Amino acid sequence: QNVAAESMSKINKGWWDSPYPSQFDSSQLTNKLDFVLVQGNKLVDESGKQVIFRGMNIADPDKLLREGQWSEKLFKEVKAWGANVVRLPIHPVSWQGHGKDAYFKLIDQAIIWANAQQMYIIIDWHSIGYLPVELFQHSMYDTTMKETRTFWKDIAFRYTGVSTVAVYELFNEPTDQGGRAGKANWLEWKAFNEELIDIIYAHDKKVIPLVAGFNWAYDLRPIQQNPVDRQGIAYTAHPYPQKAKPSVKSKENYFILWDQVWGFAAKDYPIIATELGWVNADGKGAHIPVINDGSYGPQIIEFMEDRNISWVAWIFDPDWSPTMISDWDYTPTQQGAFFKNEMQKHQ
Amino acid sequence: QNVAAESMSKINKGWWDSPYPSQFDSSQLTNKLDFVLVQGNKLVDESGKQVIFRGMNIADPDKLLREGQWSEKLFKEVKAWGANVVRLPIHPVSWQGHGKDAYFKLIDQAIIWANAQQMYIIIDWHSIGYLPVELFQHSMYDTTMKETRTFWKDIAFRYTGVSTVAVYELFNEPTDQGGRAGKANWLEWKAFNEELIDIIYAHDKKVIPLVAGFNWAYDLRPIQQNPVDRQGIAYTAHPYPQKAKPSVKSKENYFILWDQVWGFAAKDYPIIATELGWVNADGKGAHIPVINDGSYGPQIIEFMEDRNISWVAWIFDPDWSPTMISDWDYTPTQQGAFFKNEMQKHQ
Amino acid sequence: QNVAAESMSKINKGWWDSPYPSQFDSSQLTNKLDFVLVQGNKLVDESGKQVIFRGMNIADPDKLLREGQWSEKLFKEVKAWGANVVRLPIHPVSWQGHGKDAYFKLIDQAIIWANAQQMYIIIDWHSIGYLPVELFQHSMYDTTMKETRTFWKDIAFRYTGVSTVAVYELFNEPTDQGGRAGKANWLEWKAFNEELIDIIYAHDKKVIPLVAGFNWAYDLRPIQQNPVDRQGIAYTAHPYPQKAKPSVKSKENYFILWDQVWGFAAKDYPIIATELGWVNADGKGAHIPVINDGSYGPQIIEFMEDRNISWVAWIFDPDWSPTMISDWDYTPTQQGAFFKNEMQKHQ
Ligand SMILES: [Mg+2]
Ligand SMILES: [Mg+2]
Ligand SMILES: [Mg+2]
Ligand SMILES: [Mg+2]
Ligand SMILES: [Mg+2]
Repeated sequence: QNVAAESMSKINKGWWDSPYPSQFDSSQLTNKLDFVLVQGNKLVDESGKQVIFRGMNIADPDKLLREGQWSEKLFKEVKAWGANVVRLPIHPVSWQGHGKDAYFKLIDQAIIWANAQQMYIIIDWHSIGYLPVELFQHSMYDTTMKETRTFWKDIAFRYTGVSTVAVYELFNEPTDQGGRAGKANWLEWKAFNEELIDIIYAHDKKVIPLVAGFNWAYDLRPIQQNPVDRQGIAYTAHPYPQKAKPSVKSKENYFILWDQVWGFAAKDYPIIATELGWVNADGKGAHIPVINDGSYGPQIIEFMEDRNISWVAWIFDPDWSPTMISDWDYTPTQQGAFFKNEMQKHQ
Repeated sequence: QNVAAESMSKINKGWWDSPYPSQFDSSQLTNKLDFVLVQGNKLVDESGKQVIFRGMNIADPDKLLREGQWSEKLFKEVKAWGANVVRLPIHPVSWQGHGKDAYFKLIDQAIIWANAQQMYIIIDWHSIGYLPVELFQHSMYDTTMKETRTFWKDIAFRYTGVSTVAVYELFNEPTDQGGRAGKANWLEWKAFNEELIDIIYAHDKKVIPLVAGFNWAYDLRPIQQNPVDRQGIAYTAHPYPQKAKPSVKSKENYFILWDQVWGFAAKDYPIIATELGWVNADGKGAHIPVINDGSYGPQIIEFMEDRNISWVAWIFDPDWSPTMISDWDYTPTQQGAFFKNEMQKHQ
Repeated sequence: QNVAAESMSKINKGWWDSPYPSQFDSSQLTNKLDFVLVQGNKLVDESGKQVIFRGMNIADPDKLLREGQWSEKLFKEVKAWGANVVRLPIHPVSWQGHGKDAYFKLIDQAIIWANAQQMYIIIDWHSIGYLPVELFQHSMYDTTMKETRTFWKDIAFRYTGVSTVAVYELFNEPTDQGGRAGKANWLEWKAFNEELIDIIYAHDKKVIPLVAGFNWAYDLRPIQQNPVDRQGIAYTAHPYPQKAKPSVKSKENYFILWDQVWGFAAKDYPIIATELGWVNADGKGAHIPVINDGSYGPQIIEFMEDRNISWVAWIFDPDWSPTMISDWDYTPTQQGAFFKNEMQKHQ
């Protein structure tokens, strides 16, 4: 008589009953949004009309939930500021801690709420470091090759054919931290991005994989010789004000440097600058490379609008710097007021 | 004075006292079974006589334990049905959850109970997916390269020289799910199997490593050009009824397709079809690729018996499909009655 | 109204508030110790004077803490025995279990206590196995490539510029256990060591990375053809008495074998033998390869002193074999008394 077995036999559900994952139920959506796809160096809707994304990052949904700020009200406010896209920076630490199934519920809500406002969603795997050696800038960005592949497999499966989910930003900010996090190698990084894109495309061809370069998603020069060898993708850049370092800080000099390092790519590919923004030197959370006196705002917008570059400001949150709001009454900061006005111009 | 240390000093055992692993104690066995080894394309016993395995899968031992069905009675019934081999499908999720040391106790029991009935054991690392990129079909199959190597290192050490444990099935069903789980590459997969075989052989040369091909262990064609470069191994196939898709469903057409994709290998290597079976379209757990009206049974058996292919039906369990029993009174299902008769013919 | 969010909003700190790691505060140190650096095949201080390390291993700090033996008293006793260096064997299992932040506090204490006695510290990642395939000799040595890189990134950051921390021993004892833990490949191992050295040097150039060869850190012959391609490093050897197996056990024959396998390297590189020691066949914890009648002691010391090889005896602990003390009153064992005398000669 196996006593252990007897007592365990009362458990009538086991790991073998764990269901297969399910897909997002699009019948929950209010609006039919066009798919956004790549055509040459443009993003276009289903009628072939150019789409320029102008929008904002919100904080990690798990943070917003913990703070009592996760609600449709937030998405309505984002829309009221003029955004047509919302970026969700999903940190590995919160993905792991919240649990995949529960986290999907948050993303589902974001999609439903964004769709109701006719806004698109960018899903961003928000890690910083050099993934091929699995070294990261901080424990909240800690992940693995395996987890990253699995994340995109699971996301691509769940949101297959959901037009509101327009962009998959494969890895937020690749950097080897000047060697402290390994030695970044473009061909290795390019190959890994291609592997992720293939996994996504095996599930869903109507989505835009978004690829970042080194130096915290600033430097796209390696694609001049070795572009990512897949169709239908876009590139990102995070052109914070202190990334370019002209000897004389004129608009012309910034434009020259921006063009050299990432802007050039807009001639051949759609570019979505998924993080940008600034704060004054004495402002909340001021840190390199985001410090600026405000002259940056009009310059970077002129640069991007001239080149049909989409942009997503960082960040519609009162805690994470550079902030766009100073409180949960959505009071705009200096950059918040600026980007709000720029978005509203295009409504 | 270090207060923390003082209070911790009461713990007089620590991680440094954790013992080295121990080996299975063969004195617990009732019968001396011949080692089964590879000779050309045959399995043979110690006198050189051909051995054909005909037997059944039971469920994961952890499942059986939790359900109160883990007992010698089960093994006696399996023997009564005519089996000479039992396959243990060890799911990564149950290996992890049960814990290595406790799981070894289950395997030990299986060996003792099987040996008492003069049956052999196949240990199967029951994962599904493409291991080199660590993507899997379901979370219950989730494992890593490291865990898989460690599993075989630990298993090979524990059961060194135990003849009852005849076969190590390295990885149940390799598949990239049509690209959704990466891109399967035969040379990469072959090399990894060779690495596992080397680890096993460094412990134990008198055991048969069993290698699977892609398409959920169906397709062995790559071994025509690139066989696994190790001696003493066998190949497996899981030829469920809907894997071959002849335009006209005649026995002859099935035989042609089976020969093309996996049966050909029986000319050069021992083959052990470690999963096969069917269920009617309206039967319990009917799903692709196991649905059949019953015509499959006699055909696949004729095909295998003609070629001296060993076979292990899926599965002597009332829950997992295709079932061979409909309840824990061991009432045979349609396929259960069929395979029972086929096994008993050879008793 | 999101009730879950409401109740979670009371949590006003989250993962996003987790601070960045901080560096060791050197103002806690009593003495200014010279940096020790590599010059040709010598270790030298800042004035270029040769340094020979002669010292001892203590147990894993986590073990000592749990036993109530973690205190400055221990370091004073080590100094009283004549040591100028202390090696900290940090086992992966204790690093994982204790937690990084808490473990840093232990290392900080070790540095402060060693510095007060004008002794240097060797930080040793105390694993045994073949890391490129992540197979290990025992679960207490279980780690990963990722964890090992992260360990050295974190250690190198925290102790940047701390001269007391003189040596980083990258991986205690590499071995494939004769194939049971994979197949060791020198070029693969060399490349991984170079990768770790680059990560360390990106943080701190004034530290000595210490590299081990296969056969449990005994065999340095591969560096004759393929030395580790980095400057400023040293090699280690763990020449326990039964590693060399001369047919006639004469001093001359041991010297020949030692020179062939590892001693030769002292002509070109600094060597630090970070483990050595013996116990009688009937002594506590006697096991291959540490058994010896005591003749080994004077021989290995003569061999090393002739060649300016630094050495660190294993181990100033009453439990771990070969022991140097038989109790926590620090009563010397046979080898303890011998090495104590050898160290005190040079005080
Ligand atoms: Mg979509
Ligand atoms: Mg950022
Ligand atoms: Mg065996
Ligand atoms: Mg199956
Ligand atoms: Mg130092």
